[in-house]
Amino acid sequence: MTESPGDTTTAESGAGAAPGAGIDGPLAFQDPAYREAVVDLLGAIAYGEISAFERLSEDGRLAPTLEDKVAIGSMATAEFAHVGPLLDRMSELGADPYAAMAPFRSAIDLFHEHTAPSDWYEGLIKAFVGDGLANDFYREIAAYLDTGTRDLILASLEDSGHSRFVIDRVRSAIAADPRLGGRLALWGRRLMGEALTQAQRVAAERDALSALLAGGVDRPGLDLAAISRMFTRLTERHAERMAELGLDS
Amino acid sequence: MTESPGDTTTAESGAGAAPGAGIDGPLAFQDPAYREAVVDLLGAIAYGEISAFERLSEDGRLAPTLEDKVAIGSMATAEFAHVGPLLDRMSELGADPYAAMAPFRSAIDLFHEHTAPSDWYEGLIKAFVGDGLANDFYREIAAYLDTGTRDLILASLEDSGHSRFVIDRVRSAIAADPRLGGRLALWGRRLMGEALTQAQRVAAERDALSALLAGGVDRPGLDLAAISRMFTRLTERHAERMAELGLDS
Repeated sequence: MTESPGDTTTAESGAGAAPGAGIDGPLAFQDPAYREAVVDLLGAIAYGEISAFERLSEDGRLAPTLEDKVAIGSMATAEFAHVGPLLDRMSELGADPYAAMAPFRSAIDLFHEHTAPSDWYEGLIKAFVGDGLANDFYREIAAYLDTGTRDLILASLEDSGHSRFVIDRVRSAIAADPRLGGRLALWGRRLMGEALTQAQRVAAERDALSALLAGGVDRPGLDLAAISRMFTRLTERHAERMAELGLDS
Repeated sequence: MTESPGDTTTAESGAGAAPGAGIDGPLAFQDPAYREAVVDLLGAIAYGEISAFERLSEDGRLAPTLEDKVAIGSMATAEFAHVGPLLDRMSELGADPYAAMAPFRSAIDLFHEHTAPSDWYEGLIKAFVGDGLANDFYREIAAYLDTGTRDLILASLEDSGHSRFVIDRVRSAIAADPRLGGRLALWGRRLMGEALTQAQRVAAERDALSALLAGGVDRPGLDLAAISRMFTRLTERHAERMAELGLDS
């Protein structure tokens, strides 16, 4: 196993120095285990986007104004727009995209069941913090993949420029009612805890995905120290997002 | 008042022979009543699309398979994609688009409350028959407007090619359980009745819109006979859609 991307943001920038940059896509896909792992990953991301779309659309019902309803609707449709290319790619790889998504439904649905927002602000924070966390995680993994897969994943994680909307809304609500800040800070911690719980469950169940992270003779992977550094980076970025919202993490 | 578009499908084809084809847009908008009526109409259509988006997203939860969930999600996001251009146009006309949509919320929300689908098939039929009816109605009105407004409205009513999906699903469900056909035929009649009820309510409340349909010294409008022919056309097209689904109307 070789070195991880380190503590820089290499994984995020998708620069040529990413550990997976040297992977020859067509060659890598001759390995059935690699193909299976990539299909798994795309399935997880695609179902995550479908699910995010559903929850954001539902959150629209909690919107205090019609402007807010339209803003959250835009976030929801932006998530959904990423689904098509992911499904197409799974089909190109010879997989049934619906079968590929199925193993991830229970973990992702459970995450949403356990983190159903009780009001508009909890929904906004979930959209910002929860999606941010999932996106950071997928970006980290994408760094270990062939360029084609990595580019597809990075494109489907693109922020659609709605962060500013969430930050503004949450900050002004806390300014108007400072007690809200305490409740929402707890909510952010709960989102993080529930995301880690479900991610561990998926990692334990999906051998192909775990093997992907461990690397192979011709592919770099993550050793335990590298995994630990990855979690440090994810936690730090979570704290940064909470701070942007004016919340303790 | 001048002659209506008659019983042909002129209004639908948007051909040069439409009664509003001779209306000079910039000149027409110097009439504050015309501008107000157009803003009203765009507000009604935009809120209708937002609302359709919300209901279709909700219907996704009733989807029997993940394929169906994705298909209905595509219909929902296609509706939402039309909202932006309508909001922009209202702003260009000097109106606050959110204020313009507000008067239509109660009628459209009531329509949805009174026609909440109790299962997946009722949701599909509502999407196909309800949206089809609303679209036919707006197309009829659009024929009386300046070209720019008419083109914008026709673009936002475009069928996103999902009709085939609905027809296939409903027909095969009825083939599998013929009793379903009777229940769904009743459901189609209820949708039609509720749509007419709410449309009449809006017409009674929004003077600018009604005046638009009545025409003006320099604009053709609809006399009572023409309105009656319009309703005949709407009813006929509704029956055609029901027949496509294999249902009596």
